[in-house]
Amino acid sequence: VTDVTLSEIVSRLGGVLKGDGSTRVHRIGTLALAKKGEITFLTHPRYQAQLALSKASAVILSPEMADQCPVASIATPQPYLYFARLAQWLEPPRLIPSGIHPSATVESAIPATVSVGPSVWIGPGCVIGEGVRLMANCSIGPGAMIGADSFLHPGVTIYPGCQVGQRALIHSGAIVGSDGFGFAKSEDGSWLKIPQMGGVRIGADVEIGAGTTIDRGAIEDTVIEEGVKLDNQIQVGHNVHIGAHTAIAGCVGIAGSARIGRRCTVGGGAVVLGHIEISDDVHISAGTLIAKSISRPGTYAGTIPALERQAWLKNFAHLRHLDDMADKIRALERRLSQLEKKP
Amino acid sequence: VTDVTLSEIVSRLGGVLKGDGSTRVHRIGTLALAKKGEITFLTHPRYQAQLALSKASAVILSPEMADQCPVASIATPQPYLYFARLAQWLEPPRLIPSGIHPSATVESAIPATVSVGPSVWIGPGCVIGEGVRLMANCSIGPGAMIGADSFLHPGVTIYPGCQVGQRALIHSGAIVGSDGFGFAKSEDGSWLKIPQMGGVRIGADVEIGAGTTIDRGAIEDTVIEEGVKLDNQIQVGHNVHIGAHTAIAGCVGIAGSARIGRRCTVGGGAVVLGHIEISDDVHISAGTLIAKSISRPGTYAGTIPALERQAWLKNFAHLRHLDDMADKIRALERRLSQLEKKP
Amino acid sequence: VTDVTLSEIVSRLGGVLKGDGSTRVHRIGTLALAKKGEITFLTHPRYQAQLALSKASAVILSPEMADQCPVASIATPQPYLYFARLAQWLEPPRLIPSGIHPSATVESAIPATVSVGPSVWIGPGCVIGEGVRLMANCSIGPGAMIGADSFLHPGVTIYPGCQVGQRALIHSGAIVGSDGFGFAKSEDGSWLKIPQMGGVRIGADVEIGAGTTIDRGAIEDTVIEEGVKLDNQIQVGHNVHIGAHTAIAGCVGIAGSARIGRRCTVGGGAVVLGHIEISDDVHISAGTLIAKSISRPGTYAGTIPALERQAWLKNFAHLRHLDDMADKIRALERRLSQLEKKP
Repeated sequence: VTDVTLSEIVSRLGGVLKGDGSTRVHRIGTLALAKKGEITFLTHPRYQAQLALSKASAVILSPEMADQCPVASIATPQPYLYFARLAQWLEPPRLIPSGIHPSATVESAIPATVSVGPSVWIGPGCVIGEGVRLMANCSIGPGAMIGADSFLHPGVTIYPGCQVGQRALIHSGAIVGSDGFGFAKSEDGSWLKIPQMGGVRIGADVEIGAGTTIDRGAIEDTVIEEGVKLDNQIQVGHNVHIGAHTAIAGCVGIAGSARIGRRCTVGGGAVVLGHIEISDDVHISAGTLIAKSISRPGTYAGTIPALERQAWLKNFAHLRHLDDMADKIRALERRLSQLEKKP
Repeated sequence: VTDVTLSEIVSRLGGVLKGDGSTRVHRIGTLALAKKGEITFLTHPRYQAQLALSKASAVILSPEMADQCPVASIATPQPYLYFARLAQWLEPPRLIPSGIHPSATVESAIPATVSVGPSVWIGPGCVIGEGVRLMANCSIGPGAMIGADSFLHPGVTIYPGCQVGQRALIHSGAIVGSDGFGFAKSEDGSWLKIPQMGGVRIGADVEIGAGTTIDRGAIEDTVIEEGVKLDNQIQVGHNVHIGAHTAIAGCVGIAGSARIGRRCTVGGGAVVLGHIEISDDVHISAGTLIAKSISRPGTYAGTIPALERQAWLKNFAHLRHLDDMADKIRALERRLSQLEKKP
Repeated sequence: VTDVTLSEIVSRLGGVLKGDGSTRVHRIGTLALAKKGEITFLTHPRYQAQLALSKASAVILSPEMADQCPVASIATPQPYLYFARLAQWLEPPRLIPSGIHPSATVESAIPATVSVGPSVWIGPGCVIGEGVRLMANCSIGPGAMIGADSFLHPGVTIYPGCQVGQRALIHSGAIVGSDGFGFAKSEDGSWLKIPQMGGVRIGADVEIGAGTTIDRGAIEDTVIEEGVKLDNQIQVGHNVHIGAHTAIAGCVGIAGSARIGRRCTVGGGAVVLGHIEISDDVHISAGTLIAKSISRPGTYAGTIPALERQAWLKNFAHLRHLDDMADKIRALERRLSQLEKKP
């Protein structure tokens, strides 16, 4: 797709067009910076002030905003979703030709529709689906399975026997199937390794961010259900179970055997301790540590404010003495009650 | 090993057998899910209720549990350690044949017992021990040393001159010897790099998790003593010293020149600031920030509870005003004392 | 450089020499461990006690310390900066010969002065500057640009179309240009990917640590200005903007569209939430979560003390009840005022 008219967009994706349907756009821009020939979108009232100044050729927005738009508009109840669909149409993924690069090492039979990039290694006994793309320097261990139409960016590692579902999108440096962290303390104080005998099972339509690591299970498998979206540098411990369509932001750590429900969201840098259960539709704020199971849907937070350093020193020092403070309040209450009883 | 009898297990690993010694098991299962032909273990009273329902062929447990076991059992004072030993026997590591893959680039002389996988690079001047396994896409810089029988999963990088001890197990994406973060501010506000001239020395029997990074020292070396176990995505700054048999969970950050003692444990996501000294046998809870040295063995924590969002807003806003709160309490105490002195 | 005299050092780098200018040194050591033939430095009064015991051949120090130095000294107002310059001179970066390794795959025209290591992939349409060094197993996507004299350690990935400035130093496992985390929720609860159409633009003289990930922009570019220094395992979200000469320590997470000013420093493990703006010359303490924009230069903190576990349990439990505590104080104040009004 090089450029399209607004009429073509509306006939394909719906929405109510206001303005000249023959206007052509070739690119999506931001509300603040889009120029003529670009289409943009307004999703949050916070940016409403930018609308009047927009130099875009058209704006995707919610119906109640259409009147305030100085240029052509497409009204839809969910402008962000509409933008996503339009962007997928205007910016289709890069086409990677099929075939095995001569520098790759392929020890399994693979379909002719697969693309295997430079210096990729595919061990023996793997099952690689139709249309899979493995970019440079990926390593696929023996017996691994990768579902059809999956795309692995350069430098992804899949450990032996792990299973990735269809249409996976896995970013560079992601690692699936490393050993869980399991050791028994022996009599002399050294650690004896527990062989990690389980695998990793990943459902369809999962995205895994750059540098994210997913450990294999100790005995049973680690499980990531369909539609889960994992951002960069997330650590998923052994035997974790993540429910369908849960989205987790960058730098989150999930300790072993934690179970996260469906349609949850976890903010960046949060930590979920091991053996915890989080029910469906739970939303955890960035930077929050979850130390107890959560059984009710809702939003949970546990972060503290950043203060200018002097204010921080003065206020946070009291954290070591909260119990004293509570004692003092109780003592005051007792003494005051005594006084109040006096005639 | 394909399958073994309970008698064979007890004769090799000890423990008190109760039940039919000729019972055969071929796999370890979890207490909840193990089936006939599988052996499982009970290590925590929390799971005791599952014992009565277990369908396993045998259970490893502590002597006082043996009477409550509905199937055959092996009693031992440390069931988890026993399980670890049994698992190591039943699930020996995959055998990787020796030899250099034709796509590898090997610029050092290496023993014939070494296995060098596809697209591995070994620079000049390296010393690679007997039986080392280097899986696909590993990069070993000039002058690095890797001790005998070490296993490097795909995509590990060892920087020039770094030393890894015997029997290391290093997971994919781990990086040993990257530059420490050292800069001097120059007069114009830009940063002048301090060349990182030290190396990394790692003792025997160390495991390093996926995506973990260990920086080389600025002048002296960064040191990881024998038996240390590092989980995934840990950052070890320059000149850190980690004592023998210390175990550190995922996503921990250890800043430069911190010194952690022997037999410590550090929970996931904890942060240890630079130039701090932590004595032997210290245990740090997950998510805790250590900003001061710790000189006494014990368990240390510094995390805060996650609350439902409304409760969080209501309670944590006071953190900015703890000092005011303390002032108010003191003022109340003074006023009350005045009143109490009245006749 | 193998060894130099103190006179040669002073004539090249300045400073006031005290002692024998013909003394030769060949290496930099630490104040505590430096031996004869080594030069060391004293930068912090904390280490002053070590000065009297130093066995180094010479010490770099500030003028007011020169009298207390038992060996030769070079006095300069900024000993650490002087040490950095001396170290750069004594320890020049390793020379890597130019040329393309036969196992590399190079699909772009590159200058003869470039070094391309084993199993490196350079896609089509790339622009690689003079003198660039790409160590083993790096992957450079189609259309990427890498400025002259940049050095990429083994296993770095640059995504398609991203731009790296001159003299970049990028450590192993770093990833530039992975997709930002952008999804729209569709009617059935699944997530629809927002194609990440922007790129990454990195200025000159930037260092990127091991395992650090920098996402490409959603529509506009992610921008890292000149002279920025990023430590290991930092996550930079899409459309983040980091101002010139800002230095960020390990394990920091910066969420999408955050804007960090010039000459800032961010301590290890800190988290900066999305769409936040931090002005120039702001310093953020390690482990601090920044949830609101900061418009004034200064130092900001938001961390809590680690306590021995029992003290932690006793004190931090009150955090759930701070609002009750504040209520109780107000009630006490009211009751006390009542009493005080009594005759």
